[in-house]
Amino acid sequence: MGVWLIGARGSVATTVVTGCAAVAAGLHLPTGMVTETPAFTDSGLPALSDLVFGGHDTVDCPLPKRAETLTAGGVLPPGIATAVAAELTAADREIRPGGPTPGDTRSETELITAFADDIRDFVHRHGLERAVVVNVASTEPASQGPDAPLPASTLYALAALRAGCPYVNFTPSEGMHHPAAAREAERSGLPYAGRDGKTGQTLLRSVLGPMFAQRALTVRAWSGTNLLGGGDGAALADPAAAAAKNAGKERVLTDTLGTTPQGETHIDDVPALGDWKTAWDHIAFDGFLGTRMILQTTWQGCDSALAAPLVLDLARLTARAHESGLSGPLDALAFYFKDPVGDAPSGLAEQYEALIRFAGRLREGEAGEGAAEREDAADGAAHPAREVRGTGDRP
Amino acid sequence: MGVWLIGARGSVATTVVTGCAAVAAGLHLPTGMVTETPAFTDSGLPALSDLVFGGHDTVDCPLPKRAETLTAGGVLPPGIATAVAAELTAADREIRPGGPTPGDTRSETELITAFADDIRDFVHRHGLERAVVVNVASTEPASQGPDAPLPASTLYALAALRAGCPYVNFTPSEGMHHPAAAREAERSGLPYAGRDGKTGQTLLRSVLGPMFAQRALTVRAWSGTNLLGGGDGAALADPAAAAAKNAGKERVLTDTLGTTPQGETHIDDVPALGDWKTAWDHIAFDGFLGTRMILQTTWQGCDSALAAPLVLDLARLTARAHESGLSGPLDALAFYFKDPVGDAPSGLAEQYEALIRFAGRLREGEAGEGAAEREDAADGAAHPAREVRGTGDRP
Amino acid sequence: MGVWLIGARGSVATTVVTGCAAVAAGLHLPTGMVTETPAFTDSGLPALSDLVFGGHDTVDCPLPKRAETLTAGGVLPPGIATAVAAELTAADREIRPGGPTPGDTRSETELITAFADDIRDFVHRHGLERAVVVNVASTEPASQGPDAPLPASTLYALAALRAGCPYVNFTPSEGMHHPAAAREAERSGLPYAGRDGKTGQTLLRSVLGPMFAQRALTVRAWSGTNLLGGGDGAALADPAAAAAKNAGKERVLTDTLGTTPQGETHIDDVPALGDWKTAWDHIAFDGFLGTRMILQTTWQGCDSALAAPLVLDLARLTARAHESGLSGPLDALAFYFKDPVGDAPSGLAEQYEALIRFAGRLREGEAGEGAAEREDAADGAAHPAREVRGTGDRP
Amino acid sequence: MGVWLIGARGSVATTVVTGCAAVAAGLHLPTGMVTETPAFTDSGLPALSDLVFGGHDTVDCPLPKRAETLTAGGVLPPGIATAVAAELTAADREIRPGGPTPGDTRSETELITAFADDIRDFVHRHGLERAVVVNVASTEPASQGPDAPLPASTLYALAALRAGCPYVNFTPSEGMHHPAAAREAERSGLPYAGRDGKTGQTLLRSVLGPMFAQRALTVRAWSGTNLLGGGDGAALADPAAAAAKNAGKERVLTDTLGTTPQGETHIDDVPALGDWKTAWDHIAFDGFLGTRMILQTTWQGCDSALAAPLVLDLARLTARAHESGLSGPLDALAFYFKDPVGDAPSGLAEQYEALIRFAGRLREGEAGEGAAEREDAADGAAHPAREVRGTGDRP
Repeated sequence: MGVWLIGARGSVATTVVTGCAAVAAGLHLPTGMVTETPAFTDSGLPALSDLVFGGHDTVDCPLPKRAETLTAGGVLPPGIATAVAAELTAADREIRPGGPTPGDTRSETELITAFADDIRDFVHRHGLERAVVVNVASTEPASQGPDAPLPASTLYALAALRAGCPYVNFTPSEGMHHPAAAREAERSGLPYAGRDGKTGQTLLRSVLGPMFAQRALTVRAWSGTNLLGGGDGAALADPAAAAAKNAGKERVLTDTLGTTPQGETHIDDVPALGDWKTAWDHIAFDGFLGTRMILQTTWQGCDSALAAPLVLDLARLTARAHESGLSGPLDALAFYFKDPVGDAPSGLAEQYEALIRFAGRLREGEAGEGAAEREDAADGAAHPAREVRGTGDRP
Repeated sequence: MGVWLIGARGSVATTVVTGCAAVAAGLHLPTGMVTETPAFTDSGLPALSDLVFGGHDTVDCPLPKRAETLTAGGVLPPGIATAVAAELTAADREIRPGGPTPGDTRSETELITAFADDIRDFVHRHGLERAVVVNVASTEPASQGPDAPLPASTLYALAALRAGCPYVNFTPSEGMHHPAAAREAERSGLPYAGRDGKTGQTLLRSVLGPMFAQRALTVRAWSGTNLLGGGDGAALADPAAAAAKNAGKERVLTDTLGTTPQGETHIDDVPALGDWKTAWDHIAFDGFLGTRMILQTTWQGCDSALAAPLVLDLARLTARAHESGLSGPLDALAFYFKDPVGDAPSGLAEQYEALIRFAGRLREGEAGEGAAEREDAADGAAHPAREVRGTGDRP
Repeated sequence: MGVWLIGARGSVATTVVTGCAAVAAGLHLPTGMVTETPAFTDSGLPALSDLVFGGHDTVDCPLPKRAETLTAGGVLPPGIATAVAAELTAADREIRPGGPTPGDTRSETELITAFADDIRDFVHRHGLERAVVVNVASTEPASQGPDAPLPASTLYALAALRAGCPYVNFTPSEGMHHPAAAREAERSGLPYAGRDGKTGQTLLRSVLGPMFAQRALTVRAWSGTNLLGGGDGAALADPAAAAAKNAGKERVLTDTLGTTPQGETHIDDVPALGDWKTAWDHIAFDGFLGTRMILQTTWQGCDSALAAPLVLDLARLTARAHESGLSGPLDALAFYFKDPVGDAPSGLAEQYEALIRFAGRLREGEAGEGAAEREDAADGAAHPAREVRGTGDRP
Repeated sequence: MGVWLIGARGSVATTVVTGCAAVAAGLHLPTGMVTETPAFTDSGLPALSDLVFGGHDTVDCPLPKRAETLTAGGVLPPGIATAVAAELTAADREIRPGGPTPGDTRSETELITAFADDIRDFVHRHGLERAVVVNVASTEPASQGPDAPLPASTLYALAALRAGCPYVNFTPSEGMHHPAAAREAERSGLPYAGRDGKTGQTLLRSVLGPMFAQRALTVRAWSGTNLLGGGDGAALADPAAAAAKNAGKERVLTDTLGTTPQGETHIDDVPALGDWKTAWDHIAFDGFLGTRMILQTTWQGCDSALAAPLVLDLARLTARAHESGLSGPLDALAFYFKDPVGDAPSGLAEQYEALIRFAGRLREGEAGEGAAEREDAADGAAHPAREVRGTGDRP
């Protein structure tokens, strides 16, 4: 099975390729990978050792070199990049030039075709049953209206559909959300998931929001500041790019609290922090008789190390969903996203339950999908992707 | 319906009586009271305006005076104590001397009898259908072995049983957990709940623990410090008293994480903080490939304002459970406790679901309890109290 | 002695008047007033009981009413506003309409004249030896260039000079910094001080910055977020108004560290916090061999309660400086300001030393100012205001 | 010049040796070394490249191996241990067995003699002008009274005196504070410094305490928790060992605030944190009119990286003091210690000023010590070590 990464030379992609090889080789435990927990044992997910990586990127730095830099920055543990050098080199060979680059004269259609050809070629040469396209590129500025050119993320999403591949958007970029792509996705019969991986502050918010709501405590203001360096810090220092991300962060509050509290969320580019991210949240809430109380949280994490195991989870789950004949928005994967596609609960606990039910459906999917449909009908709480058959121009 | 408070002149009890009157009079919204949310609308709970308060205490300070002190300390909003002075005075008249006080020569049996008589008298004079006994007294030192005298909390628990009253232990004291009381409880056919209200740090832990577990992140160490003044700060400065409380705090980690992380939990008496409590938690966890990350939380709350709405919730729910014929440990109320009785999940989300199901059962209970039993049988996830009939020497 | 407050009905002014009366009456200790510490015992400062208050404001809410609101918000302790009602009413009678208000047709000269007449009249009617004008109004947007109308703060500053009064700018507004006012100040021979009281985050920065510098630790990034409600929160939500304030906050870092670290400082308007302010700072620094370390601080204070004692200190010190014949920028008061006038050190410890030396000079000033001048000449570290005589058109 | 480290195979010692070589070779900037700032340029300190390391330890792990472990733990940057392998190996050869080890039958006198012989032999073989003995061993339990055996730290201190070497106690162990050693020190005419390096929480306290005092803010409670792994975490988990350390931490509060606030300080052993230390402080203070406010700080640092540059500073300064003929407690080095010897100020700013004055005295010491004495007499604020001549049995 193939994993085609948009932004294949970035920190997240490098950590994905390195970590998959290291875990497959038994060098590290699969910490952070939910698909390696017992609930997924018989769900028919592809083995880590069966994943083949390729992707698009607009920069040149070879993956082994990138892994060295991440090691120096404390993102990858010492020694691991050397131990999996062969796998990094193999993945590096499968990275094709992305676009559009400045001065690129190709039309949107030409770009989509070129990208789709790259993916098909990858699948063909490796004799893969299927490949999942995952967007882990830097966040784009929000789209500029209906007449603006398609954002790159949408070109890649359309290329994925053209190549018959399921698609996962791990970023807040538009990707499959653009109206042009949304129509195509509907027609394609392919499953897709997204958007914007929930790795830190929003993960916390998705458990703290429900806590306040369930305890009937009134949240007056929820303020937050994110400090991060690395590529994402620079990209999000652009207010247009930060807007999409913040929308997701605030959505989880509105959805779990049932109201939008006061307060802003800042994203600051602090290059000195490198790939490390600090998120401070300050929550002013009222208790009984209006007594004012405060909760503060500080989350200090490494962005790539938080994202990479989720990317591996998503690639495996989406591939298996495709194999099981599911199509459309995979709302059962809301557990992973700030701004989930489809119709999904906002609290992490419910999202986790939905994910575990999905694991069950994938398991039953092997024996016969009818069973899954019956369970579905009985369980009003689940909102699974629709099942379709015989569609998609698969490679 | 009666609410009989052990520790009836303490901060929590004073806030309970004041707040109940203020909310019933429409002076304040019922912030923090889960039983006032829509899920409980038709569950047949007693109205706040129908609650009559009394209790035991070993100190003399009148409730209106106590409410004044709490107003000066910022626990009660300005003006409210004056607005509900009549209700405070009424409750104050129903407070009887507790015990054993130093030099008390009464035997344990005499004390139990005296306490039970006080409660029966209260119920009788007010013509109440039932009263719930709730322990909100200061935390006791842990019991000293099988030959030690019964702790006061257990004397009160036995008095509650003797008076035919359901019992709620909002503290970490032994109460109904003492072997002597446990046997009696079993025989009595009365419902009971506890122990140790989950108001701050442990509430947070009960949502953060599951978050780490669900995301397959490895928690290496979970350390915490609690700073609090007020009576509870002084009581818990005694290591023997703190031991029971900390056991509950750590239990939620072990239960939700599936392992006991490194780290200690301190409780410091800081009189300058008065009734305000600060809890700092420091969680060291490993992400993908062993990358070390940190979450810190700081919770600043007013202990009495956090506890009081839960006490009102518990009194109403336990009274209604009694009315519905339920008996034994009310594990559906685990949502409220650090160390819940019976067989209950540890994560807050699951506890909330169990509570909401319980609200449904109480609702159906009005139409006929058989329905409840059938739903029960079908729903393996719930662990409701057993239903009994015709037992208990009800007042 | 008179204290003329610009913004006389605001939270800070109300706290100043209330607190001065309460401390003078012995109802409260003078916590937060440096001029009440032993170092100032014989410095000849006016007694708190001798201070007479008046001022300008554009709003109408009477001071006793304002004090009530501040009591409800927890800024003033219960009971105090009632205890000093007479003093509040007296000060309220001395508040004159400020300006320019929307639709005001008076020229700048007319406004300055009117304001100066108000101040002279106040001094005259009360038979005061002198009055100090202190700006505690909401922060203005930064000035819009040389052709823009004079900001209100500068109109008031010019009125102070016209009335022969020393002037203190407790806000980041332009006031005496405007070129037009600066020239006049020079000519007037009056002492003045400012600007922008150092009450929280910058106070902390002025001790932490030197700590890092003295330990030769390299600060890589210093990021901060301020959350505040109240009038100042709303005023500073305007980026133009926040710019001046942030410049002062960052100046202290550059001055104490010797370099400008990465990082931004945000000021968020969070009305739910009322007059309470939370400031979070995140400092990324390098230790030996480049090891990366972090310091975080969270400051939770009440803005008016932090500002008021400093305003009283400044009024007394500036009045005494005037009496001692000092003129020009009072750089010895840098201890109180984010962006001090004159030539002053940036670290709090050195600023404190300069202040204590100033206390000594004021003390000696009573016996004969020649002594002060001699000490001065010997001590190169002090940068005292120049002394002048017989200038200023005093009332 | 020699540096003889007690605890020569520990994290601090390994970082000292590694870092000295790396900085001397120009591989890293001297971040954290105050003696490399301009104020010390002409103070006649020994060059880093002239330092020769040796020491005592009771464990066997070779320094290059230890440096590898510290690299894996993120204390030393990748690559550096390899770059200075020769210097590590050279230092390793100069480490002699410490004691007393369990089962050691040697008398105290024999141990002191053996240790002193080791030091003399080191000085002799390398032809050193002098060596400074620095205690960087794990903290010992507090001494058990006058009849208890001498603690190991005191045996080493006596050995230093016997060998004619100045002595620095970087730990809270007794060392030269033991009455037996104190008498000898007095007689020896050697300079000494200590105790307990101020690397994190206490460093912060030494700037925050003065800030509160100078602003006349009343600190009600100062509570703290330290989490640390590594050897020191384990040693300090012993309450007896923690007692000495905490005494120093609290002393700085009492000294700078002028009163002892409420609150406790905990030291928790959290092995998962390795050599990283987190210190949380919670400071409850009163502002004007008793308004309650809170400051919290969280310090996350690497203990060895914080300590090592201070150890190098102290070795150089103490050696130069010895060369300049100073003797007795070096109170001018209070800047470095929690619990400084002699008569020294407690605030960091004053300690820094004293240190800079000391740098000046050392500078003048080269031209002729008479000048230093005269300056001394004129400057009542400084409390320099007494100068002596011709004493000490120097090697």
